[in-house]
Amino acid sequence: MYFEDFTAGYSFLTESHTVSKDEIVNFATQWDPQPFHIDEIKANDYPYGGLIASGWHTLLISFRLVLETGIFEKASIGSPGMQELRWLLPVKPGDKLLTKAIVQSAKRSKSDPARGFINVNYAVINQREENVATYAITHMLRVGPK
Amino acid sequence: MYFEDFTAGYSFLTESHTVSKDEIVNFATQWDPQPFHIDEIKANDYPYGGLIASGWHTLLISFRLVLETGIFEKASIGSPGMQELRWLLPVKPGDKLLTKAIVQSAKRSKSDPARGFINVNYAVINQREENVATYAITHMLRVGPK
Repeated sequence: MYFEDFTAGYSFLTESHTVSKDEIVNFATQWDPQPFHIDEIKANDYPYGGLIASGWHTLLISFRLVLETGIFEKASIGSPGMQELRWLLPVKPGDKLLTKAIVQSAKRSKSDPARGFINVNYAVINQREENVATYAITHMLRVGPK
Repeated sequence: MYFEDFTAGYSFLTESHTVSKDEIVNFATQWDPQPFHIDEIKANDYPYGGLIASGWHTLLISFRLVLETGIFEKASIGSPGMQELRWLLPVKPGDKLLTKAIVQSAKRSKSDPARGFINVNYAVINQREENVATYAITHMLRVGPK
């Protein structure tokens, strides 16, 4: 798939990933070592009722699931940014996450006709079908060969 | 520092971190395995003139530097989300990054007077004093003990 294949309304669903306690602690120890992400005991002093995943971890799990669909493999040449991101619900050990994506808009580049930009809304969904996070990325994509 | 110490205009600067090629490849192999992040040869087929760090990696390096200041250590109880994020310039092996932060606004919670929310604008800056990324996070913070 190339830029021109991603029209507004195009949607896709990723596979799922179950998050383990070890993954949560290991990720957060490296990148986001706050007590509610890395320490089961201290986590009880926070409003979440136990250990929760770093919001960054949730995003990365979601993004990796998106890449693993292969949908962007041929076209992706990076991203200029992300819009409004919400961490809506805690992600806890054992939660099973997947991502739903829907293309909001697509625009050919004016300066380089070999590229275009699409805005994609992503929702990260748990095993109870709750949105745990939502975010929107602008993807820069190659236009397909003629 | 607690919620009430973060008033609009309060700013701080982090230490710096120099990003190595191995870090770039290792991070992206796990979370963002696109050719321009993991493969020096294939990276030449992309617009960046070689290997560049995953934008997620840049954000996490920046966020970790922010946590390492200790400024949020007592007060932080998580975040409901992030606003407009821009990846402005590629981050390449050897780049030295630091983060400048400025509090944009602060608002006590209406539903829970023991908490407040602050919006912080972050700029990730390289050794040439260029902004490589900007982002804004809403931090949920504890109000200090009376």
